[in-house]
Amino acid sequence: MKFLAAIDVMPLKEILDPQGKAVTGSMKNLGLPEIQNVRIGRHITLEIEAETEAIASQKVETACKNLLANMIMENFTFELKAV
Amino acid sequence: MKFLAAIDVMPLKEILDPQGKAVTGSMKNLGLPEIQNVRIGRHITLEIEAETEAIASQKVETACKNLLANMIMENFTFELKAV
Repeated sequence: MKFLAAIDVMPLKEILDPQGKAVTGSMKNLGLPEIQNVRIGRHITLEIEAETEAIASQKVETACKNLLANMIMENFTFELKAV
Repeated sequence: MKFLAAIDVMPLKEILDPQGKAVTGSMKNLGLPEIQNVRIGRHITLEIEAETEAIASQKVETACKNLLANMIMENFTFELKAV
């Protein structure tokens, strides 16, 4: 079975996000001061071939921990959808 | 009212994603050849103060079009949640 995974990798709450901070400042210049606390991470989509959703989930988790996310500074969440 | 927006900005399907391609290759070295077609974009969260969800949605769309996404190479989707 083929699954589509949608992964969000975000900087940990405790960690300063300088890119997000810069964008929050730019919102003011754009005339949108009501936008606050912008945080920027990565959105990753991928296809995975696996027998069951449980196996796919386990493999996506391995990929996230070993390659897609830096577990010291980031956390990740993901969703799987059979296609 | 305060809303939380979760925005995904992704490279258009027609556009090559070299970062995603490199990561797809690395999956093989990681022992995960069943992972294919990795595409990498940005996941952005922000808080917005607005009277109604419709107004918040309109402002987030303005922010995406003018600052968060490059509409020539990327598209965006977002969800709003009242907090």
